[in-house]
Amino acid sequence: MAEPLSIAFVLFPHVTQLDLTGPVQVFSSVPGATLHLAWKTIAPVPTDSVLTLLPTTTFADCPQSDIICIPGGFGVDAILNDDEVIGFIRRQAAGASYITSVCTGSLALGAAGLLDGYRAATHWSARECLALFGATVSTERVCIDRNRITGGGVTAGIDFALTVVSQLLDRPTAEAIQLRLEYNPAPPFSAGSPDTAPPEVLSRMLERIAPFRTRRVEAAERAASRLARTAG
Amino acid sequence: MAEPLSIAFVLFPHVTQLDLTGPVQVFSSVPGATLHLAWKTIAPVPTDSVLTLLPTTTFADCPQSDIICIPGGFGVDAILNDDEVIGFIRRQAAGASYITSVCTGSLALGAAGLLDGYRAATHWSARECLALFGATVSTERVCIDRNRITGGGVTAGIDFALTVVSQLLDRPTAEAIQLRLEYNPAPPFSAGSPDTAPPEVLSRMLERIAPFRTRRVEAAERAASRLARTAG
Repeated sequence: MAEPLSIAFVLFPHVTQLDLTGPVQVFSSVPGATLHLAWKTIAPVPTDSVLTLLPTTTFADCPQSDIICIPGGFGVDAILNDDEVIGFIRRQAAGASYITSVCTGSLALGAAGLLDGYRAATHWSARECLALFGATVSTERVCIDRNRITGGGVTAGIDFALTVVSQLLDRPTAEAIQLRLEYNPAPPFSAGSPDTAPPEVLSRMLERIAPFRTRRVEAAERAASRLARTAG
Repeated sequence: MAEPLSIAFVLFPHVTQLDLTGPVQVFSSVPGATLHLAWKTIAPVPTDSVLTLLPTTTFADCPQSDIICIPGGFGVDAILNDDEVIGFIRRQAAGASYITSVCTGSLALGAAGLLDGYRAATHWSARECLALFGATVSTERVCIDRNRITGGGVTAGIDFALTVVSQLLDRPTAEAIQLRLEYNPAPPFSAGSPDTAPPEVLSRMLERIAPFRTRRVEAAERAASRLARTAG
């Protein structure tokens, strides 16, 4: 890219903050990059944790950016059927070079009709929802299909953002950021995916998240039928 | 621990936000955990990036916590010689079970006199500063020496926090969090440490950070002589 990079994130209530803060840390390290955290108003937004974040702009004021990026989290359920949010994502997507997401943020891209016929990644627990929007579910940590770049669950956002930087700028820029962030991961355990977690850890987790998962499927089904009606 | 876990972070201006937000995401996933983000006032705090974070409490109001955790970043230079901050760290440390840091946050533990005779980790670019406070520099990603647990640079905070959870609670709790956060990292490049980064990426980075490094050494030297005077 000739111009300095600009990235617009949707900062919605009850976002999984690391879905956002990981990529924000990486993209902020790109020389000259401009980041926007957009929401309906600029009032403080609660996240899934003790963190409260401040939007930098509203949907109405957010400049057209090179990259639109949607993080995930419990709050995604609410935005899937929110016309104001989906409308903003569509408007930005129409002018963006790259349409991206981390974790369950891909469901919002799906609800906006932006993943129909594309391969895309999401959090391991949300894969069944992605197919509702005509996407082919990828289990890759970072999935690139034409100008859609989607990351897997939460921490995949760091791998995702480094990949985006290397694609849009160059590899040495991405490597310099990786060095600065000392991103040389050494997880103390190997429980980071359903394929590698101890079976009892996985089954307890599946039990615990079952109600949230049911709610998410309902929200995604509703969004998918709205989308079908719009398209029809 | 019998009681639900409580963790106090120092949230200072120009913190490297991922030093904080990584561990916050992990610790927030511990059932029943209480997290405090403490600063002098509860006014919004700017970070190193576009993110602005809200403290949840002031130093005066922050309850005694089980864990005190200091993140790092450019803003550390200022807190090393700030009596109000160092005083808060000392007071919390006196009653805490674990005294911890991520990245250059360990320099603040050092300035508070809490690392004298301990092994500790820090960001790779700050190792020369740590020794000024009587610490033995560790190049581990997570360094445990008695009740001091210190992480390396930025992203090491995730490995650090999972390690702390497994130490203070149990391994299945840490594994469940790792699964939820899909922490199954796959860095696209291997530039995450000075030992593995391409030499030209490392040398350009060293050149770029030289002025910041000089400033940090000056701040650390000043803090170390203040500490020596207090102790003497």
